[in-house]
Amino acid sequence: MNTVGVGILLFDDVEVLDFAGPYEVFSRTRLTPGIESRRSDASAPYRVFTVAAGSDPVIATGGLRVLPDFDLASAPPIEVLVVPGGFGTRALLQDPGLLDWIRHVATTAQRVTSVCTGALVLARVGLLMGRRATTHWGALAVLAELDRTIRVEAEMRVVEDGVVTSAGVSAGIDMAFAVVEAMHGPAVADETARYMDYIRHDWRA
Amino acid sequence: MNTVGVGILLFDDVEVLDFAGPYEVFSRTRLTPGIESRRSDASAPYRVFTVAAGSDPVIATGGLRVLPDFDLASAPPIEVLVVPGGFGTRALLQDPGLLDWIRHVATTAQRVTSVCTGALVLARVGLLMGRRATTHWGALAVLAELDRTIRVEAEMRVVEDGVVTSAGVSAGIDMAFAVVEAMHGPAVADETARYMDYIRHDWRA
Repeated sequence: MNTVGVGILLFDDVEVLDFAGPYEVFSRTRLTPGIESRRSDASAPYRVFTVAAGSDPVIATGGLRVLPDFDLASAPPIEVLVVPGGFGTRALLQDPGLLDWIRHVATTAQRVTSVCTGALVLARVGLLMGRRATTHWGALAVLAELDRTIRVEAEMRVVEDGVVTSAGVSAGIDMAFAVVEAMHGPAVADETARYMDYIRHDWRA
Repeated sequence: MNTVGVGILLFDDVEVLDFAGPYEVFSRTRLTPGIESRRSDASAPYRVFTVAAGSDPVIATGGLRVLPDFDLASAPPIEVLVVPGGFGTRALLQDPGLLDWIRHVATTAQRVTSVCTGALVLARVGLLMGRRATTHWGALAVLAELDRTIRVEAEMRVVEDGVVTSAGVSAGIDMAFAVVEAMHGPAVADETARYMDYIRHDWRA
């Protein structure tokens, strides 16, 4: 099967659930329903991998140590880019190499997405220019300041306007399901949620 | 502050959200509300760490590589034990060293908890004997078979009966909030959920 490459960006002080939520959703999605289909990748539409600036372990918020699969230079083609948030985004906003990499990936990716304050990074790169977007409730004002052309949506968990942004931390799970639904239909998204015992939110509201 | 040690067990083929959900909740809980309080551990009631059989990276479901903080022998005192699930629990059920370790930790822990098929491991150790408990919907029958004295609750997301068990994957987030609420009250749990943009479920229903 032709799988879709999902690249999840990792960095020090990335919020754990920001990357782990979408990681879970994309990596456990199957086109064949049920539990047994999850024991192999035979019907997996996504190939999920983590990418970081270097190959050292990333220390996520709370101290969780994650080994990235690839560094920026060695990452395979990324069709879905996930930029999570966390206090570590502060440093990313001042990291020209990382920002250039995101800009470069965005030119060929089918979908660019963010969770929480990951939206600030996308705004800094100019990817949210003139678009509707959201972020963690504590960063809505910062998002607006970074790019005055962004129409900030304060009341939505997921905003799809070319780029897919989501609200704080746990909203990344809803964002990932929204992408799965857009690419593979509601039945595949709902069945994966059922596998995860996840109660999807009406994120459009 | 006297912090509570939360030990999260890791093993190959552990389900990502099973451990990452509780990791997020316990590691981001603060007794002082707000976002700024999350920038330090000053008001953090929990000290969260990961424990695995060895010190090699653990390969979670989907391929996520996590470096455990401690092996079984070197882990600090565990007041809250979290046993996540995933296909890897099959191997745990046949691992006398690991099962002995869980039995030993349970004798001194304030709370023993599980997510998803982690309940099967607790059942194998005998920790669910005569108790109400739950697991992933696909493993309810297996749980009942492992120990006929367990009263399996098929309709609840979280079951507290001495040991705290939860339903599939994402229900581990609700389980962690239930423990936070029991130990530090509903205001602390609700405020942490608000920080995470998480909509808590009425898990008692």
